[in-house]
Amino acid sequence: MREVVVLGVGLHKFGRWPDKRVEDIGREAILDALGDAGVEFREIESVYCGHTQHGMGTGLRVAGEVGLTGIPIINVEVACTSSSTCVRLAYQAIAAGIYDICLCVGFDKMEKGLIAIAEPGSLEEVLGLAVLPGDYAMKARKHMNDYGSTAEQFAQVSVKSHKNGVLNPYAQYQKAMTLEEVLNSRMIADPITLYQCSPTSDGASAAVVCAKEKAKRFSGKGITIAGWAAGSPEYDGMGREIDDLSETMQRRCGQQAYEIAGVGPKDINVAQAHDAFTPGEIFAIEAMGFCPPGDGGRWTAEGKTDIGGEIPVNTDGGLISRGHPLGATGIAQMVEIIRQLRGEAGPRQVPNSPKVGLCHNMGIGGCTITILKK
Amino acid sequence: MREVVVLGVGLHKFGRWPDKRVEDIGREAILDALGDAGVEFREIESVYCGHTQHGMGTGLRVAGEVGLTGIPIINVEVACTSSSTCVRLAYQAIAAGIYDICLCVGFDKMEKGLIAIAEPGSLEEVLGLAVLPGDYAMKARKHMNDYGSTAEQFAQVSVKSHKNGVLNPYAQYQKAMTLEEVLNSRMIADPITLYQCSPTSDGASAAVVCAKEKAKRFSGKGITIAGWAAGSPEYDGMGREIDDLSETMQRRCGQQAYEIAGVGPKDINVAQAHDAFTPGEIFAIEAMGFCPPGDGGRWTAEGKTDIGGEIPVNTDGGLISRGHPLGATGIAQMVEIIRQLRGEAGPRQVPNSPKVGLCHNMGIGGCTITILKK
Repeated sequence: MREVVVLGVGLHKFGRWPDKRVEDIGREAILDALGDAGVEFREIESVYCGHTQHGMGTGLRVAGEVGLTGIPIINVEVACTSSSTCVRLAYQAIAAGIYDICLCVGFDKMEKGLIAIAEPGSLEEVLGLAVLPGDYAMKARKHMNDYGSTAEQFAQVSVKSHKNGVLNPYAQYQKAMTLEEVLNSRMIADPITLYQCSPTSDGASAAVVCAKEKAKRFSGKGITIAGWAAGSPEYDGMGREIDDLSETMQRRCGQQAYEIAGVGPKDINVAQAHDAFTPGEIFAIEAMGFCPPGDGGRWTAEGKTDIGGEIPVNTDGGLISRGHPLGATGIAQMVEIIRQLRGEAGPRQVPNSPKVGLCHNMGIGGCTITILKK
Repeated sequence: MREVVVLGVGLHKFGRWPDKRVEDIGREAILDALGDAGVEFREIESVYCGHTQHGMGTGLRVAGEVGLTGIPIINVEVACTSSSTCVRLAYQAIAAGIYDICLCVGFDKMEKGLIAIAEPGSLEEVLGLAVLPGDYAMKARKHMNDYGSTAEQFAQVSVKSHKNGVLNPYAQYQKAMTLEEVLNSRMIADPITLYQCSPTSDGASAAVVCAKEKAKRFSGKGITIAGWAAGSPEYDGMGREIDDLSETMQRRCGQQAYEIAGVGPKDINVAQAHDAFTPGEIFAIEAMGFCPPGDGGRWTAEGKTDIGGEIPVNTDGGLISRGHPLGATGIAQMVEIIRQLRGEAGPRQVPNSPKVGLCHNMGIGGCTITILKK
């Protein structure tokens, strides 16, 4: 298998863009990534488009905006991990030697806010699990019960997220927030308050993925995809998720990605965690082995995941402050890690030249862990 | 790159299944394919689901029906070529050495009949190109003008299709039809009459794709994926398709697939062509090089594409008689070719033990050509 790098990345600022089409926001992210990679659109051999809210043919139109016609254009949907899956598919084709250089783009305009994950009238809906905050809240309550973590510790994830978001011009929210403001915002699903939920967002992200042996021809700034793993939740025969914290899936994928990349949790210098709701970040840093099981809340309260902390997490504001257009999130996580590894993160730059970063992307479609190396 | 085979295939009969969920029809196709391959569901490492009409998470539910949870499950949408694209993605991952054995499944319940391909109010809509029959009819008229082909020749595609459909218990229509019946059915878009259009269908198809070196462990009936190519239509800067017959795209993909497979048009013993509307089959057999440009109509009228003819095409009834649930069509084409190459096509069996088959799958998302070898 050939080694594969991400050569260039791009974003359209996350937020609410009622006057723009997905073609508009997608184009901006693509042009940003092509420019960053130093790659002309004619060099692209295949396009992978991750999105969840748009109909048949959308990828064709978005790619067509920058003249990408004639080549294979594939739409990929794996809910919140759609665009990290795109990078994985490009990786596979390039590793196999089928293509040298591919474009991955993630985008979404989220019309609706919360997403129902259970059928109307189903047991899950009756139990309050039809929407994601209810699901995360129950998992958080279990964590509080099992490990003594507190509502304040979960809320601290949002405080850190907003602090980092201030430093990120592409973030949907660039406004600091105190612990009191987070805790006193409207209760959504106890212990999760409004400011602990990722917002409804529009946005786009893009990545140029390339065979390492061909990367010299271009910008030469390639960051290696050192390892990845993916999985979906495990269900029993009755359709119930076997593992309520999705811990098994996350841990299994993390372990697999570490093995492939030949690194361990201690080697990760900067990480992105899927904080769709604040408890998600706590579960993630435990599942990725950054801290012992149950210690995630305390670690966060102690500032160990801050920029400058032991393992900086969501340095760009994460899903909560950067925003969460489902299809765009996976690549957006990579954009931040790649900028950090290149030393291009400006006021958000993690000190001591980070060498290895991890993206923890998950959702109702499953989990994708990607380890990137300088 | 490792060689890759299709180890087993399965179908749910195409038709209208108002009382079944996609999970039901998908499950039946998957179990059929697993049984055919002699593979237990626990052996599957990754699932690719091709569909166009169903929402987020559908692939997870369909795969979950047969206990496929925990592993990566990806939804893929490329319109009419969704499931042939799934096989291509599985091929790439297996060729790269990432997985040994994957499941691909295509399904759709088509709620609506005709599909609008142009924005309301657009130039295309005003010109009658908003729906596919209009588009195909204009291409057919150009073909009649350029090459002297006739309405009767196009209609003959449907007569042959229905004749073959009678022999296929999985076909939506199993009823022979005379040339007069086809020509005298309701006019849809001159020269295309009702019985020259693929119907609105529900259905599912599945394929177990495997590294050749691992295939011996299972049924051993693997058919090699010898070559494939994919592309999308080429548009000019104004969003207009450069090549009105999509000939360039089809020819380019065909040529590329032939080169990779190390064969030429003369080596193909049996083929599937994307006959969404009868002219599509004529264009396809010309673009694939089975006959000289412009001769497709005459060839069809002379019976050269019949079972027992020079190059049997759509031996299972094709899209017109077998049916066309968009997501299921790509793999359904492969199912027929694989059964033909294995000599398992029963009353539809092409004589003289066909060794090499070709699937020509196309639509608004582009084109996928797959060459299969015994």
